[in-house]
Amino acid sequence: MNFEEILEEKIEETDRRIRKYLPREDGFSGKLAQAMNYAMSSGGKRLRPLILQESYAMFGGSGQEAEVFMAALEMIHTHSLIHDDLPALDNDDYRRGKKATHVAYGEAFGILSGDALLNYAYEVALHSFDLPGDPARKALALQILAAKSGLYGMLGGQSVDVDWEGRPMDKETLQGVYLQKTAALLEAAFMIGAILAGAGADQVKAMERVGQNVGLAFQIQDDILDVTGSLEGLGKPAHSDEKNHKSTYVTLYGMEEAARQVKALSGQAADALFALAPEKDFLPRLVQWLITRKK
Amino acid sequence: MNFEEILEEKIEETDRRIRKYLPREDGFSGKLAQAMNYAMSSGGKRLRPLILQESYAMFGGSGQEAEVFMAALEMIHTHSLIHDDLPALDNDDYRRGKKATHVAYGEAFGILSGDALLNYAYEVALHSFDLPGDPARKALALQILAAKSGLYGMLGGQSVDVDWEGRPMDKETLQGVYLQKTAALLEAAFMIGAILAGAGADQVKAMERVGQNVGLAFQIQDDILDVTGSLEGLGKPAHSDEKNHKSTYVTLYGMEEAARQVKALSGQAADALFALAPEKDFLPRLVQWLITRKK
Repeated sequence: MNFEEILEEKIEETDRRIRKYLPREDGFSGKLAQAMNYAMSSGGKRLRPLILQESYAMFGGSGQEAEVFMAALEMIHTHSLIHDDLPALDNDDYRRGKKATHVAYGEAFGILSGDALLNYAYEVALHSFDLPGDPARKALALQILAAKSGLYGMLGGQSVDVDWEGRPMDKETLQGVYLQKTAALLEAAFMIGAILAGAGADQVKAMERVGQNVGLAFQIQDDILDVTGSLEGLGKPAHSDEKNHKSTYVTLYGMEEAARQVKALSGQAADALFALAPEKDFLPRLVQWLITRKK
Repeated sequence: MNFEEILEEKIEETDRRIRKYLPREDGFSGKLAQAMNYAMSSGGKRLRPLILQESYAMFGGSGQEAEVFMAALEMIHTHSLIHDDLPALDNDDYRRGKKATHVAYGEAFGILSGDALLNYAYEVALHSFDLPGDPARKALALQILAAKSGLYGMLGGQSVDVDWEGRPMDKETLQGVYLQKTAALLEAAFMIGAILAGAGADQVKAMERVGQNVGLAFQIQDDILDVTGSLEGLGKPAHSDEKNHKSTYVTLYGMEEAARQVKALSGQAADALFALAPEKDFLPRLVQWLITRKK
């Protein structure tokens, strides 16, 4: 099997494992569960839970407790997508070719299903305490999950991005937004896998840096694809940043420097992963794959 | 001191203890922190954290770990108020005489500050693992906090309430909405205090029932005040339920039966509290006070 085939299989496996933790759609608040599950079934790459699982395996983890964190991380990511699409934020009616949740279920259910997914993520992750495994590791993993998702992580980055809408962003602010809005949840994926498997503090710190570099590379690659991609390849209109007068790495640094950054950041991340576990090659290959993707 | 003076002092003390956990307003995402703190400073009675603290004391608790849960519970409650007020939900421009958060900071920051408070609640509560005290109790308290706030608790109740808007509600649905939307967080307050102080499973179960009865009584009393109250006393227009064609305990059961229910539920709650700790009289008196309130 080539890497893309291995990846495809792993994505399917990750998807199967996450789905076990989706709420049932019957009962008193069944419609809210439906809206949550609709958003969770929009066909994403399950990148964050896959990275969490692979980081866990990289440090020798083999228990069940990583699974609840995989589901939780994808729920928090999905929560952010639902709320990003709302009329008061990006006002997108479609996501990956499907109606956005607020369009399919109405705006009130768009807001509430995002809230409920964020909260359900903690319900599911807290279920880890009922599974075998070291409670102190789970507590630390939960603290990282919350820190990377919130005011000083993803949500904070999103708020600064919204606050600057329509104004040209300086380089420092753009960097801050990318670090929090995109990199923070990827940092959580790399770190939580390592923590649950019993990695030491230095190793967890190194995984945080890997996540940061991967997150930045991933976001800058997005900026590049917005300029070079086609509607067909991206599944969304290209040149949307230019049309929206959005500051990106490409507008602030130019295409050449943006491409150089993606390569440098990905290289650093892959090198660091090899240094931590020379015999495991899936994550370094995934990092390389991410920067060659066309969508 | 009479009871109202004691209560006033305890509310001030609770407010002081909660404020220690509010985020700083400087730094990269400072504006989001400002919006969160604005919503958290709208002058509520701090009822849920006060109940948590008193339930903790009732079972002999005296450590610091209850405090982070007090702050977390008030943050989750405040998150729900911010999102309830949004245009797509209740569309209220004012809350307790102040501009609603989405009016003061814009709709996008209304959504994001609600999200961020919900997430920050877990950040703060998870900080309990860094404090002295039994980790298993903290894990259980976190599980209760998440369960009572989410799909099967407050948010689920809110979603059903929204879903029935403009249609007359049957008695069973109304009961379900009141149990989840209003009672669930009060159940969490009574239960978490008891759990952290080391109460047994039977005692925690009894405290859950107390919370349920108090929550129902509190909500039915709200229905009654909406009919009998004045703008002056309530701080909001009376008869808003009637104007909005909203089903309430008063419209479905009549005023007399509603008043009888409030009395019966409060009496059961006070009796149960006395049975659990005969020498502690603050919580039973608080329960009685709640049903004699005029706003």
